Amino acid sequence: MLDLAFRPDPARPEPVYRQLADHLAELVAAGRLARGERLPPSRELAASLGLSRNTVTRAYEWGVEAGWLGAHVGRGTFVQGPPRPDDAARPAALRAVPPAFAWSALFSTRVRALDPARALRARLSEDDVRFDFRPGRVDPTLLPIADLQGAWQRAVGRLRTHGNDFDALGWPPLRAAIARSLAGRGIAKHADEVLVTAGAQQALDLVARVLVDPGDVVAVEDPSYVLATLAFRAAGSQLVGVAVDGDGLRVDELARVLRSRRVKLCYVTPSSQAPTGAVLSRERRAALLDLADRAQMPIVEDDYDCELRSEAPLLPALAAQGGGDRVIYVGTFSKALFPGLRVGYVVGAPPLLRALSLARAAASFQPSLVDQMALAEVLARDTLERHVRRVRRRYAERRRALAAALAERMPAGVRFREPQGGTAIWLELPREIDRAALAVAAAARGIAYGSGDSFRVDGDGAPAMLLSFASLAPDAIRAGVAELGALVARHAAVRGRRAVRRIS
Amino acid sequence: MLDLAFRPDPARPEPVYRQLADHLAELVAAGRLARGERLPPSRELAASLGLSRNTVTRAYEWGVEAGWLGAHVGRGTFVQGPPRPDDAARPAALRAVPPAFAWSALFSTRVRALDPARALRARLSEDDVRFDFRPGRVDPTLLPIADLQGAWQRAVGRLRTHGNDFDALGWPPLRAAIARSLAGRGIAKHADEVLVTAGAQQALDLVARVLVDPGDVVAVEDPSYVLATLAFRAAGSQLVGVAVDGDGLRVDELARVLRSRRVKLCYVTPSSQAPTGAVLSRERRAALLDLADRAQMPIVEDDYDCELRSEAPLLPALAAQGGGDRVIYVGTFSKALFPGLRVGYVVGAPPLLRALSLARAAASFQPSLVDQMALAEVLARDTLERHVRRVRRRYAERRRALAAALAERMPAGVRFREPQGGTAIWLELPREIDRAALAVAAAARGIAYGSGDSFRVDGDGAPAMLLSFASLAPDAIRAGVAELGALVARHAAVRGRRAVRRIS
Repeated sequence: MLDLAFRPDPARPEPVYRQLADHLAELVAAGRLARGERLPPSRELAASLGLSRNTVTRAYEWGVEAGWLGAHVGRGTFVQGPPRPDDAARPAALRAVPPAFAWSALFSTRVRALDPARALRARLSEDDVRFDFRPGRVDPTLLPIADLQGAWQRAVGRLRTHGNDFDALGWPPLRAAIARSLAGRGIAKHADEVLVTAGAQQALDLVARVLVDPGDVVAVEDPSYVLATLAFRAAGSQLVGVAVDGDGLRVDELARVLRSRRVKLCYVTPSSQAPTGAVLSRERRAALLDLADRAQMPIVEDDYDCELRSEAPLLPALAAQGGGDRVIYVGTFSKALFPGLRVGYVVGAPPLLRALSLARAAASFQPSLVDQMALAEVLARDTLERHVRRVRRRYAERRRALAAALAERMPAGVRFREPQGGTAIWLELPREIDRAALAVAAAARGIAYGSGDSFRVDGDGAPAMLLSFASLAPDAIRAGVAELGALVARHAAVRGRRAVRRIS
Repeated sequence: MLDLAFRPDPARPEPVYRQLADHLAELVAAGRLARGERLPPSRELAASLGLSRNTVTRAYEWGVEAGWLGAHVGRGTFVQGPPRPDDAARPAALRAVPPAFAWSALFSTRVRALDPARALRARLSEDDVRFDFRPGRVDPTLLPIADLQGAWQRAVGRLRTHGNDFDALGWPPLRAAIARSLAGRGIAKHADEVLVTAGAQQALDLVARVLVDPGDVVAVEDPSYVLATLAFRAAGSQLVGVAVDGDGLRVDELARVLRSRRVKLCYVTPSSQAPTGAVLSRERRAALLDLADRAQMPIVEDDYDCELRSEAPLLPALAAQGGGDRVIYVGTFSKALFPGLRVGYVVGAPPLLRALSLARAAASFQPSLVDQMALAEVLARDTLERHVRRVRRRYAERRRALAAALAERMPAGVRFREPQGGTAIWLELPREIDRAALAVAAAARGIAYGSGDSFRVDGDGAPAMLLSFASLAPDAIRAGVAELGALVARHAAVRGRRAVRRIS
């Protein structure tokens, strides 16, 4: 391990991260860090130098901005080239400009706590992707484009008479259509129980803003949905991860957490745990609602892909089991249609909806009016329903193809479970695997997937990956898994039994 | 008078008196009905809600039985204390229902600080509005609907190949088009200097999240744009209002504030002060940039309606005067097109844009992709430019009509200045006017306007109103002002000279 021998000098005017960046630049300039050499993960370096991880991250960012460090998916941070002698650590953008602000010194505590690398990791350029197993995608070639074009065109026409419309809860016909679609499941009966948001992401963000003070504890599944944890972190919450098994959240573990800590909010994905795909069992649902009651702990039920579940009937939603008032139910249309459609919704208790609506006004005034109008029609004319029926069949095919290919092509020590819903399969990799090297090798071959680390509440844990089957045809799935399986085998230290462990 | 805003829900299983009782209990729990506060006599409440008196009486009795209402001879019914969450204090019939959360007790400090009444004041029902002088509106009948329909239709078609697209700064062709439109004014040269947001509102909210810690001071113009102050309040900031005169922000006053307090951020609207319409003078622009430098205080320049300014060339933007790095420039398309179009943008220093982009991912992932794609085309094909040229002429006509009607119809003591830009005229009313009575009388006649109080940083101050001329034809403007002028005259205590003071 590289000995960086760095100690911050309190007498120097620059912040510590700048001192560290300068120090690294000197090492590069002196040839002690060679071009292409990988720097230690920020967590490791921070630990070895006794600095905060944030300081190391900011020093790395500084180097990337200045051009002598690089950062790529799965490759971590590496030396890109020599710093220029005159202004070693100075980012290019700042060179010719009048006195700059020390912007990073002005950032709020909440924003400093976010790790940009986890949230917005540099992506492979689209052109370089040969096999796209990344989560959160759909197959846009399956979209009923002509029907959608009609709906959006008519929505724009409606601006003639509704161009100034604003409703504190959202476009009323859309709320009515959402309430109708949920009524059968006992979740919402009336349009006034629905708040439309700019996607499920805004729903989660508003919930965090309304309920979380900095330092409050939010309990989440571990592993958990990356962008949900980002929203909770952005509100200044402290995340506590609760383990997940084949029946979803370990509610017994949550109960233990609750004995020692006040938990402000619990975030769960009962229909199809994100990312593992487990379904929260009936018994655990009851136990969770009971805990919520006793601890006065609201539950956020993120039902992000209920439309796409193809087999096994849905268990009753938490929000439906007489638990309505305790549960904040979040839904979205981005999974069933396309991720760039930023329309989601919240069903919740009236006082909560009023507070969320006020927070929504502060956050973005209202969601896109044209999208809301078009979607109301898409729901009313059953365009969505027909599309979902078609897509469900395709996704089931692809899921089976992926599961079969994994069983055949992955080496020993790889474990997975074929989920009933979702659009992805979660793979646990052999503990001994060099995941960074695997990521580099996969990227080099244009194979893109979700890194397991980004789903872990503490950023690491047992190695894993998330493979989405949504946007690839079965043949492409088989071809991609054949290549990926070979790479995993090559990077796994242990090569024992050939058989993949397919969890019952 | 207490606004109970209660409507029975026929879909709910409980009888109406139970629904009303629950509603009252929520108001008490939320602190909107304070301990000791008297409820309206049952006869009055029944009349105002359109319910039978018996229903109201039984709802009151219910609360008395549960202990959170009290009733005494001669005192009527009053709030006794908060409804207790535990079952003991609940009426027998309520015990079977799972105990509700005390939601308001769970709300975050930041949300508690917001005043719902100021942000989302009850609006007139659209059907009751005869003369719509409310700010923030456009005339949707002027929109080039056919062109827009084409742009949105083609955008939806583009989903076939771009349905999964995400860019941390926004749809690249849109950023390029925005940069091109700003390049002539020296504000942004390159697409990578632009972050697309879900409207200017999200831009302000993200700036607040990234730069403001709870308790930080944000300096704003006083009066100021309501939704901007809402965004800053929602981030937990302390607002300090700085006076505005005919040359915009009193920069000398801001300098005095800076001598005694650390100001984290200063929000200004230099092109057309919101709401007064004053243009920040050249001298003050220079002085403001100088202050920003010396105090390391970033400036948010909200250029919300630069497209619509019809006369007098624009002074150089703060963001253009070599001040780029100090200034966070915010723009929007909602004023030039329609308010439901939630696409705006920020131009700023690279480290700031990165932090804003991360905060944007947490807040709403990305703005509507279809809106972004459609708008890119609207900009590239000069549809916006042609529309703006047409609208500018119309707005100038209407502005002159409004100014002339005000000069003719408003009583003595009313002061206003015809602005060069914006879509509204700010009216200072006689100090002695009964503004609440005026508001009631105007609403009764279907005349809607912006209440001056909502623009004051401290919620009150000298009486004023904001009249938008955007969505009314000149004849309607004249007819509306004739009625409104008579109402103002009736509610103004002083009736001195007839002449309106038109400020030079």
